[in-house]
Amino acid sequence: MIKQVEIDVLNIGIKQNTADAVCMKIPDGSTLAMVTTKNKFAAAPVVISKDNLQNNIIKYIFVNSGNANACTGIIGHNNAQQYARKLAAKLSCKSEEILIFSTGIIGKQLPMNNILSSLHNCNLVFKSTWEEASQAIMTTDKYNKYIHKKMTIQGQQITVNAICKGAGMIEPNMATMLAYLEINIKLSKSAINKLIKHVVDNSFNRISVDGDMSTNDSFVIIATADTETIDYDVDLTSFALLKKNITKICQDLSKMIIADGEGATKIIEIDVNNAQSENQAKKIAFAIANSNLVKTAMFGCDPNWGRILAKMGSVNVDLDITKITLLINNHMIFSRGEIDRRCNHDVLEQSMQNKEIFLNINLNSGRSRFKALCSDLSHEYVDTNSKYTT
Amino acid sequence: MIKQVEIDVLNIGIKQNTADAVCMKIPDGSTLAMVTTKNKFAAAPVVISKDNLQNNIIKYIFVNSGNANACTGIIGHNNAQQYARKLAAKLSCKSEEILIFSTGIIGKQLPMNNILSSLHNCNLVFKSTWEEASQAIMTTDKYNKYIHKKMTIQGQQITVNAICKGAGMIEPNMATMLAYLEINIKLSKSAINKLIKHVVDNSFNRISVDGDMSTNDSFVIIATADTETIDYDVDLTSFALLKKNITKICQDLSKMIIADGEGATKIIEIDVNNAQSENQAKKIAFAIANSNLVKTAMFGCDPNWGRILAKMGSVNVDLDITKITLLINNHMIFSRGEIDRRCNHDVLEQSMQNKEIFLNINLNSGRSRFKALCSDLSHEYVDTNSKYTT
Repeated sequence: MIKQVEIDVLNIGIKQNTADAVCMKIPDGSTLAMVTTKNKFAAAPVVISKDNLQNNIIKYIFVNSGNANACTGIIGHNNAQQYARKLAAKLSCKSEEILIFSTGIIGKQLPMNNILSSLHNCNLVFKSTWEEASQAIMTTDKYNKYIHKKMTIQGQQITVNAICKGAGMIEPNMATMLAYLEINIKLSKSAINKLIKHVVDNSFNRISVDGDMSTNDSFVIIATADTETIDYDVDLTSFALLKKNITKICQDLSKMIIADGEGATKIIEIDVNNAQSENQAKKIAFAIANSNLVKTAMFGCDPNWGRILAKMGSVNVDLDITKITLLINNHMIFSRGEIDRRCNHDVLEQSMQNKEIFLNINLNSGRSRFKALCSDLSHEYVDTNSKYTT
Repeated sequence: MIKQVEIDVLNIGIKQNTADAVCMKIPDGSTLAMVTTKNKFAAAPVVISKDNLQNNIIKYIFVNSGNANACTGIIGHNNAQQYARKLAAKLSCKSEEILIFSTGIIGKQLPMNNILSSLHNCNLVFKSTWEEASQAIMTTDKYNKYIHKKMTIQGQQITVNAICKGAGMIEPNMATMLAYLEINIKLSKSAINKLIKHVVDNSFNRISVDGDMSTNDSFVIIATADTETIDYDVDLTSFALLKKNITKICQDLSKMIIADGEGATKIIEIDVNNAQSENQAKKIAFAIANSNLVKTAMFGCDPNWGRILAKMGSVNVDLDITKITLLINNHMIFSRGEIDRRCNHDVLEQSMQNKEIFLNINLNSGRSRFKALCSDLSHEYVDTNSKYTT
């Protein structure tokens, strides 16, 4: 029997006439790892799920969209617990054996009457697909985000299914969206925890839509133990390959989140090279990623290197402007203190029409590097966020 | 003879057919104090002026708009020096006795031929007004910013003239605009330095348009020593009154900058009370002031308290959500962990149509306070900044 996560997509009465919840049945023997938002006002389900994962063997994951159950106080916390107890009764397990997640509107109480009666009446058959699950967790997303991939490690074929949702309140730390990834191998608790940390640091923690950190976001990896031949705690070459492959999948999901960022018309990659430390490179990359003046310039297809430099100068790190070079879409525009006279501005300006923009910054002062992805700041961003209420 | 700053407004060939420069003649015996941007890539004139003020008696201040001479490398630095030397020859002083300031486009070299021939040919008569000066330093500003005020300290009448420019790249530290303030009293170097620090910390350093820190911005106070009766080093009551009055003038200028922030439709005051420290309150106030999700909500007249709370939770300070209350336009909307059920949402929503929005946050955990002002994020902000190139 193949051990894989079984899925049921359902409506629990939060959204009207569309799927608004996903139930995942975790195979026996699976290991799970999770990272959640560092927001101090993490939503009730996040708080409950962290506790449950630490102290129990998890049998189910349950996610709803449409209501985040965040900033909802004691009532919200009690609602989340009641909701989990109702689920436990339905699923014949303990409520502590379920991870629950919510995403959507902040500050509104869950429609508990709808939810409890929907859960009472529903018939869970676990015949849905990962792709259907990726649709059911959408909020302001324009399209669903799903990756199915096979890879081979040491001759052994491995299957990965991964879904996520994003769109707004995307600023990593960690990781500002919901994402679930199933992998059909056996991993020890120690190996899966190492894996998730590496993956998050190199994917979801490198993106920003708006510099606003969500209250709800969570990423779970489920290793279903379907395949047991490689011991990833011992075989470090295989583990390195696994990390690389899973990181790539999550980088692809991250890029989908940015491409679908609220109002995004462009994906901007900010690659800071030859820094004194990764932290220095990261601070600069995110300062640029979150600069409204840079983001609006990118929206306007304007290679506005002055704003990029001015933003860099405002970051609290050592910088020597006479060493810095800046390339936009591979055109050297700024070099060691001033505009580079060799730059062909017509060709550069033409390249700004592309959907993907590359900012390559060389600090020429060390060997560290950090890459971040962000979206631009458009009229549609303003439109969406001035009309979408809490 | 009344000792006051004499002004000439002129065109030096940067902008076409409109005033683009101001020359101020500083009376003998004046004391000056200055604060400038903390941007590491401060423009050439800022670097030169800081040095000049420290080592010389300043006889003139010269400001141009239209070109910031920032990120212009050694050529830009040499241009600024040549420009100052030309001025010195015209004004019969040493170039080190002039403070020069530039504001406008970043990264373009000054049109030196135009400037040098304009300076050669101009006839400085010093018959312009502060109000005309406030017009000549405008860049993306929609209106000029000028305050003329008389005050009485210990029976002595004092006159203040103050001008500033703002609009974009407004995030304090210090102080992200150009501002010049003349006061007709005698102040020691020590007193004027204390005055400027207090004034800046309580006015220009409490505003944000876009979280982007300029490369050029500077604030100068000139005490012309016209009136000498009060010794502000000794008479601390008078000094306190002076600080209070000048701070109020600069708060009014700050508010003008926010009201004229690029695309601003609203002025948002964020008043964080009962914090453990001023620094904690300040971090929270500026996190909210620079949150795109909060700023777009304000533009949309949406009292989106969920976004305000979520932003607060992302700040790296101790916070207890169960102690926090949030009032929007004096309506208690969030209280101790959840939405306040007594809030009249219809009245609150109606109040969001006002030009000024008040966010009052009580942390109920200490006695410190910090107030910040910011503008909203509108379609016009995106429009202006996607079209205005470096």
